[in-house]
Order: sequence, then structure tokens, then C-alpha cells
Amino acid sequence: MDTETVVDMGELADYADPRRLAHVAHNDTGLELVWDDGFRADFHRLWLRDHCACPKCRHPQTHERTVALIDLPETLPRPTATTTDRGALRLVWPPMGDFPEHISEFDPGWLRQRALPAAPRSPVEVETWDAAIADALPRVDHGAFMGSGEGVRDWLHSLVRYGFVLLENGPTTENEVIRVAERIGWPRETNFGRHFDVVSRPDPNNAAYTPIALEPHIDLPNWRRPPDFQLLYCLQNEAEGGASLLTDGFAVAEWLRSEDPESFRLLSEQSVDFRFQDEHTDLAYRAPIIGLDDSGALAEIRFNNWIRDSLRLPGHLVAPFYRAYRRFWNALRDPRFAIRFSLRPGQMVAFDNLRVLHGREAFDPSTGGRHLQGAYLDRDLIHSRLRVLERRAA
Amino acid sequence: MDTETVVDMGELADYADPRRLAHVAHNDTGLELVWDDGFRADFHRLWLRDHCACPKCRHPQTHERTVALIDLPETLPRPTATTTDRGALRLVWPPMGDFPEHISEFDPGWLRQRALPAAPRSPVEVETWDAAIADALPRVDHGAFMGSGEGVRDWLHSLVRYGFVLLENGPTTENEVIRVAERIGWPRETNFGRHFDVVSRPDPNNAAYTPIALEPHIDLPNWRRPPDFQLLYCLQNEAEGGASLLTDGFAVAEWLRSEDPESFRLLSEQSVDFRFQDEHTDLAYRAPIIGLDDSGALAEIRFNNWIRDSLRLPGHLVAPFYRAYRRFWNALRDPRFAIRFSLRPGQMVAFDNLRVLHGREAFDPSTGGRHLQGAYLDRDLIHSRLRVLERRAA
Repeated sequence: MDTETVVDMGELADYADPRRLAHVAHNDTGLELVWDDGFRADFHRLWLRDHCACPKCRHPQTHERTVALIDLPETLPRPTATTTDRGALRLVWPPMGDFPEHISEFDPGWLRQRALPAAPRSPVEVETWDAAIADALPRVDHGAFMGSGEGVRDWLHSLVRYGFVLLENGPTTENEVIRVAERIGWPRETNFGRHFDVVSRPDPNNAAYTPIALEPHIDLPNWRRPPDFQLLYCLQNEAEGGASLLTDGFAVAEWLRSEDPESFRLLSEQSVDFRFQDEHTDLAYRAPIIGLDDSGALAEIRFNNWIRDSLRLPGHLVAPFYRAYRRFWNALRDPRFAIRFSLRPGQMVAFDNLRVLHGREAFDPSTGGRHLQGAYLDRDLIHSRLRVLERRAA
Repeated sequence: MDTETVVDMGELADYADPRRLAHVAHNDTGLELVWDDGFRADFHRLWLRDHCACPKCRHPQTHERTVALIDLPETLPRPTATTTDRGALRLVWPPMGDFPEHISEFDPGWLRQRALPAAPRSPVEVETWDAAIADALPRVDHGAFMGSGEGVRDWLHSLVRYGFVLLENGPTTENEVIRVAERIGWPRETNFGRHFDVVSRPDPNNAAYTPIALEPHIDLPNWRRPPDFQLLYCLQNEAEGGASLLTDGFAVAEWLRSEDPESFRLLSEQSVDFRFQDEHTDLAYRAPIIGLDDSGALAEIRFNNWIRDSLRLPGHLVAPFYRAYRRFWNALRDPRFAIRFSLRPGQMVAFDNLRVLHGREAFDPSTGGRHLQGAYLDRDLIHSRLRVLERRAA
């Protein structure tokens, strides 16, 4: 079967398809196309002119659209439409005002992809989990991750599916966390720097820099745009205590939605304030603890008790809010939902900061050193890398 | 008048208030407080315990909340409540389970701020504009900006109010744009780097790196999280052409909302795809061109014709969408809305990338050099800096 592309559409994702165009006919608004397997689809004339991929309409180097529909007439004349010998679509647009005759060619596979009304599906589906996942934690070997596209792909798939993944058997080299991040993109810089060291400090400006226990939380809910993903790389872990805790906030939120819909409603509809302030900084944001998208699906979790700012709610909602908050918090802590493990030197955990809450048991800094290095990654970069790897796999 | 604070609430924003507490009484859920000017407010018992600012409940160095309400009984016993000699609130909580007696003190001004149900207002109101603003462009002197808090404050106020501001009389030193950004925070890194050079390049991967005209657009609408603010610093501008164009997208969107509600509805309800792809990158996102918040107010504009990806819409919406898109685009170009100016070396324009669209007329690279350096800044940092400056001004 011929699965070569027929026309270069300036598109790096795969669109090769053995099926060719068999027939083209005009209708009121544009064209009806028929493929050689009988599949039919309509394309509007404006759409076709807008999507011409010739070097005049798409920049040949940047692949960006350079044709400006706004400079063409609002109602386009009917083009001459034919199928080529290789089953592509060829349109000849008559001259329009200052614009001379113009030829557009479209690859049949590329058109076919765009004839389907459904959005392209993500290559990875989200799967929520509870404590039972501890029996088979998602893990990827550091060597495979650093050395192969396959390793990166496995790591990304677990990270997007479960919201977390362990990287194992890495070196205990300073700033290895940066090298890991750069395998995907570049670290997201915050008020804690381009990367940060989680150690017990004499003058902490943040609870993470103390040896105290950390309740399950997300980082930086006080930002309009908190970090999407977090990497925590273990360089040293000899202190007593300090086990890591993770809970799938999406699993807990769905549990709350079915168990106690009124509490779910309060936490998803009422906004609360989060805030971090020091001498140079006052980073504050107001948002619900359970963030939903337009369809009511879970979009993000913002839970962090220690940078929650003063609660501003109408008086009659104060007690119900605290009740709902306590219920959610209790479930986040619940061993039925949470997993607990100790990071070994050379291990790194990565997690979706807006889905999987992380916590830590207290540790005793007098019993040995504990040093993690952290960095953040943007969701945009995670998905870009996934798409590029899918492109190569195709 | 005594405007000192009475109790340290671990809060860096100003809460000094001459009015003191005169009376405290229990009610069903907590306390009713009465100030010496007759103002009354209720505070729930859970709220009061949750907001205790003593060194055991708030970390004395990080100011973060360390009291965990979840570890206290769900229904709290009634505290002993008195006003102190200096008009503060003093609560003595009886022992609860493992928790011993606990004393909480609250500053009367701090409580008063939190008794008001309204959200604290932004110190700067957004003001939309049209081409008439060209008569008095918002400008700040580079020296004042780099040398004084007042200069930074003026710059931030204009930037948030109008969505853009010029910085003038700066040096023509490489990377000055970074130094300007660092006066506020740190640059947001993207796939174009930590900063970027806008020059005509032989091998562009982006239309900005060519000499062609650029239609009004926002940068990186193909990111889930596009850059919030953009800085463009002019180092050289000797080429013929290349004038800068700015349009207030919020003004144009509001015009469309009243002029053509159906087009406004289409552009704000139907999502379109944006995408940038090269060998290593495939950054794609789907969102409406006019983004609204829950209340229907304008939240962001995503318009960029050259990285708009294939249009995926139900067939019956294709023609109405193109009509609405063309209408919006025409208005963005309209000299009634757009301003036009040439950046001089040492001038910098900063703008809200999700509100004010920028464009450029074509230039002729054979007639002289043109070199701008750009960087991005997060909205979180802009607002943090504003809050810290307001704190000092108070």
C-alpha cells in the first residue's frame, strides 16, 4: 500500500494515509469530497482557502500561516476543483481583486484527518489511583531515561497517566535534577529559583526548609499559575524519618464528589485565598480548592494549609466550609488513598503538582543529612515532548 | 491618634488602624466584636482558632500557618474572650484532648480588615483605550525606573491600567531588557529562550525573525500558559519601515460585544487550535479567541493568525466563525483602535500580552539594522511587586 504523503502540507505530525480522493463535487458552500473507500466529507470554501499550504500561504521555513483571509473577498468565488493522478485535491482559484489566480493542493490523508469532527485524542489517558498502587509503583530507569527516546516516552506516559513516576538508579550528582528537566525542556523559575534545595535550614522562609512534617499539599497555590510538574531528586537521605507521601488528589476529589456532594460543591465553587509574603514578595491568588473545567471535570487541586491566607467567606458558609475542608483533608491523609515511601539517593520522584499532593513525615536532622533538589516543569513542555515522540513513533 | 499595630499578626501588609475593640460577646457560633466607633462584626469560632498568629500557630520565620485545624476537635469549645487594655482581642482556649490550654491574641485593625466581606481592591483599575491615547502615551523614564521605587510604581500602574507603557531614554546596551525584567522579578523562559532577539534572520523559525509585516497578534497562544507580559527593548532601528502597532484587545472585544453580539458569542464560546511545530517542539493548545471569566468579563485575548492551526468546527459554524473572525480582525487593524509609533534606540515598550495586541509594519533590512530584544514576565510577579510597593507606600 502506498502510505507516502502526496502533498507537503508543512505539517510535522504524521498524516500519511493510503486512501486517496476519488471524486470531488461542488455544493452550496464549498466542496464535497469522496475518498476511494467511500468516505465523504464537506469542506467550506473559506476553510480551504484559509488552509492552503503552498509556499505563498504558509511560510516555508516557519510553517506559519502567511495567507491573510482578511485581505481576500468575504465571499470567495468558486474554484476549479479536480483530483490529481495521485488522489490529491487541486483547486484553481480565479483572480480576486489585486490577487492573481492561485493554486492550492491538499494531501488526501491530511484532509481526511481534518474531516473528522472529533478532537485528536491524547495518546495517554488519565487513570486515578489509591494506595493499592504501592504494589507496582510506576518506575523508569535513569539510564533508559537519559539514553533513549523510549525511556523518556515511558516516563512521560506514567507521569501523565498516574500523575507521578519514579526515576531510579541515577547518580548522586549535584544539579542532576536540572539535567533531567532539560531532557524534557527547561525548568520553570519561581521565587525559589530555577531549582531549589530541600534541606533543613537555620533561617527558613518556607516550611519545606524546616525538618517538620509536611501535610499533603501542592506547591505555590498562591500563584495564578502554579508550577505544573515538580521533580524532587534525592541526593542524600540518612536522617531518621522524612518518608515521602503522595496522594492522588483527583481520586480523593472524585470520592468526595460521590460521598459528600455538598462538600464537593463548596470546595469547587467557593474561592479561598493563598499567599506567600516576605520582604520582597507578596504573591497572592484566590481560587477554589477543587478547580473544575467548563464540563465539570477535575482540572486542578489547590490544597496547601500553611499558605492559605485569611478565609474570606460569607458568615453562613464558614462552618460548612471548614467541615468540607476537614473532610477533604482527612481523605488526603487517609492510608487508603496515600502512598508512603523513602526516596533513596539517586532516586527522583516527579509528579503533577496540580493533581498529586505531596507530603513528608518529620525528620530528625541530628541523625544524618537529608538533601533533595527540586525543579518545576511546565505542562506545555510535557505535552510537546509527548507529541514529538509520538511523531517519531508513528 | 494611635495607629501602631497592637498585636503582631505575622502579616507584612499594613493593618494599623486607630480604632480599637470596645466590646466582645459570645453568640451561637463564635463572637460578636464591637469596635470603639460602633462597627460590629461576627467571627466564627473555627475561623478564630484557624487564624491564631502566635508562634506555635504561625511559623515565626516563614509566616506560614502551622496550626492544623484537622488535629483539633470538629466542634470547638467556647474560649474565654476579653478585650485587652490596648483594645485587642484575647482568647483563652480550654484544653482539648492532647492539646493544652492555648492563648490567641488578635490585632483590632487586622480583624477589622477581615470583617469586611468585600475582596481587597486592586490598587490599579483597568482602563481600555482607543487610538486617542496616542496624544498622551503612558511613559516612564528609564533612570527613574531603574533608580527609584516611585519609577517602578508608575511603570507598573500604567502597565496594569492601560496594558502597556513606554520606558524612555535608556542605554542601548545588550541585554538591558534582562536588567529591566529583573527590576520586577525574573524573565519567563520559553522555547525562544530566556530572552530573544528580534532581527531579520536568514533561517527564521518564526515570523518575527523575518522582515515581513506582522498583523496584530499575541505571542504564544499555542501555550496553555502564554507569557503574560512582554518587554521589547529597542537597540537599533535604522531600517526603513518597521513601525510598531498596538491595539487594546479588550477595547475591541467590548466594541464587538455591543456591535455584533453573535460574533462575540462565537469567538468567546468556540475554541480554536493554535500550534507551533519544529523538529524538537510541538506546542499546541485549544482555547477561544476571546476568553471570559466566570462572570462574563474579559479575561484574555488569543489572536494570532499565523500560528492558528487547522480549524475544527462543526460544518454549520465554519462560515459564521470566519465572518466573526474577520470582523474582529478588521477592528484590531482599524486606525480608530490601533496606535502606531517607531521605537527609538533606548526605548522599550512593555505590554500585557493577553490584552494588548502588537504588530509591526514591514521593514527593509537592506536600508539599515533593526534589533529589538524581548523578554516575558509573569503576571504573578507584576502583582507581587505592586503589592510590595503599596506596602511601603502605606
